[in-house]
Amino acid sequence: MATEIERKFLVDKDKWKSVLKPVGEFYKQGYIFNEKRCTVRVRLTSNAAFITLKGPTAGISRSEYEYQIPMPEANEMLELFAASSIEKTRYKIEYAGHMWEVDVFDGENNGLIVAEIELQHEHEQFEKPDWAGEDVSKDLRYSNGSLSVTPYAQWR
Amino acid sequence: MATEIERKFLVDKDKWKSVLKPVGEFYKQGYIFNEKRCTVRVRLTSNAAFITLKGPTAGISRSEYEYQIPMPEANEMLELFAASSIEKTRYKIEYAGHMWEVDVFDGENNGLIVAEIELQHEHEQFEKPDWAGEDVSKDLRYSNGSLSVTPYAQWR
Repeated sequence: MATEIERKFLVDKDKWKSVLKPVGEFYKQGYIFNEKRCTVRVRLTSNAAFITLKGPTAGISRSEYEYQIPMPEANEMLELFAASSIEKTRYKIEYAGHMWEVDVFDGENNGLIVAEIELQHEHEQFEKPDWAGEDVSKDLRYSNGSLSVTPYAQWR
Repeated sequence: MATEIERKFLVDKDKWKSVLKPVGEFYKQGYIFNEKRCTVRVRLTSNAAFITLKGPTAGISRSEYEYQIPMPEANEMLELFAASSIEKTRYKIEYAGHMWEVDVFDGENNGLIVAEIELQHEHEQFEKPDWAGEDVSKDLRYSNGSLSVTPYAQWR
């Protein structure tokens, strides 16, 4: 079993503006099933597609099974099966020997920017860039599945 | 999109006994999500495993997306994610130029034997073997997803 161990931080928008970024990649993610027991997600990007199953979150860890699938089939499944979805642009930025993934959300989650770092184990040390702010690793509202159902625009 | 077009018949148990059969293959199928909109199923056999998504049934047709996955991962997902499951032994029998799949169910569905034939289009002609009885193609109780939740033993 693959285990996803992830820390998650809110991103300071002003500082983010001045970060030298690579070109971002557009992600569309549809949630076919989205409960604590299991999430079934289809992800379509500009050059690949995946079906992913994730288990319940325990602390900052989660079981994960991901399989690459043909892009046209992912597109059909998003159309036919997804009960909710999100759109975001992902930027991959290396910082102090770790790869950070910064998600700039779109649509109903517009205004939300979240930075994630995947770890090998829960207590792995890492250095935080200055644009990474509040730690929201354990706040389940920020899971993409949750954002697809209760988007950021509805929080305020 | 792949479309599954399938006719389904109850099998006469006495006649089935005297059919010259190949060795059957044991299937375990777990249902992660099982609604009209979409079924997400993991199938584990003795030599392969698959994750399959199926759309709503319209007549005898259904959209279907199937991906082969590693067997150990399928086994884990059956354990972790499946809300219901079925077990059956499948026999593949060629008859009059068509391949028939005969499922001899186990567990709570013990006593049920169903023969399926996949067609290229809804009106394709085929010859029915004498062990294939009542046409139950449109009876949704016989879908494997439904049998995993409301097994045959509970019908009577």
